[in-house]
Amino acid sequence: MKRIAFLLAAVATMAGAFASVSQSGRADEKAAPIFVTQMPPGYRDWKLISVAHEEGNLNSIGAVLGNDVAIKAYQEGKLPFPDGTIIAALHFKYVPSEENNKVFGRSQSFVPGPPTNVQFMIKDSRKYAATGGWGFGHFNKDGTLGDEAFMKTCFPCHAQAKSTDLVFTRYAP
Amino acid sequence: MKRIAFLLAAVATMAGAFASVSQSGRADEKAAPIFVTQMPPGYRDWKLISVAHEEGNLNSIGAVLGNDVAIKAYQEGKLPFPDGTIIAALHFKYVPSEENNKVFGRSQSFVPGPPTNVQFMIKDSRKYAATGGWGFGHFNKDGTLGDEAFMKTCFPCHAQAKSTDLVFTRYAP
Repeated sequence: MKRIAFLLAAVATMAGAFASVSQSGRADEKAAPIFVTQMPPGYRDWKLISVAHEEGNLNSIGAVLGNDVAIKAYQEGKLPFPDGTIIAALHFKYVPSEENNKVFGRSQSFVPGPPTNVQFMIKDSRKYAATGGWGFGHFNKDGTLGDEAFMKTCFPCHAQAKSTDLVFTRYAP
Repeated sequence: MKRIAFLLAAVATMAGAFASVSQSGRADEKAAPIFVTQMPPGYRDWKLISVAHEEGNLNSIGAVLGNDVAIKAYQEGKLPFPDGTIIAALHFKYVPSEENNKVFGRSQSFVPGPPTNVQFMIKDSRKYAATGGWGFGHFNKDGTLGDEAFMKTCFPCHAQAKSTDLVFTRYAP
């Protein structure tokens, strides 16, 4: 019995070691990037972190929401974000509101048009060790996953936000 | 002593009667407008209805949140909104994000600056009968209540959104 237990422990340890090697990306081989491939359920009902508008090609207005782990970390000013943190960025086409402008009597009001995409950052320092502990995911407006070439651009860009654990969005008071 | 107490009670009762008359707004006299005078607790953690940007003098970026009654009504497409609905509009100064622009390599990113005000609409068809069943409230950035002259402008403006029960904001999908 003791021997079997020992063997099992050994196998488990080896499996752990392999998983760790493949995920951390050994220096002598290219690390396969891992992305978020499934939308976390219920994210539309999460609490608000902040809002944003991007001009230019993006031409978006967005809301950034967080699960309870994310909101707690933000409200307590805790960095780095703990494992289990999920941040969702909901993007919509940036459109003028004709209705509102009519009431205001001038063109000044911009609101969300149709959704354009939803992006996620999931903190799991083991699973996503190769990309700073964060898994990135981009979902198109029809719910399909963004293509890999595009998603490879998430991490190098976010890596520039080192002082805030790769997260650009600050908590709106 | 007894006499003084009686007088005080009488004055208090009369004051109450006057307050009640002025608040219910009898048909034969001008209804005094009633406003929301206290911020509903916990509103910052409510769920997201939508986001918006106003140009011009307002120069704001905002998030519109709702209590559970509001969110349920929105998600079920229920109109008019039931009593108990509370909608909160959090407004912030609309500012460029130098941090984000540096990463993007161009000026395109706008985020919330300091808060400017918070506005509420509370549905109570009896209490706020004189203003379409909605109580309106505007709180300045320091938490003080907006002045009455300003708050009198809420209802006539919102009254133009008759088909959506005086609410301008649509639910962002």
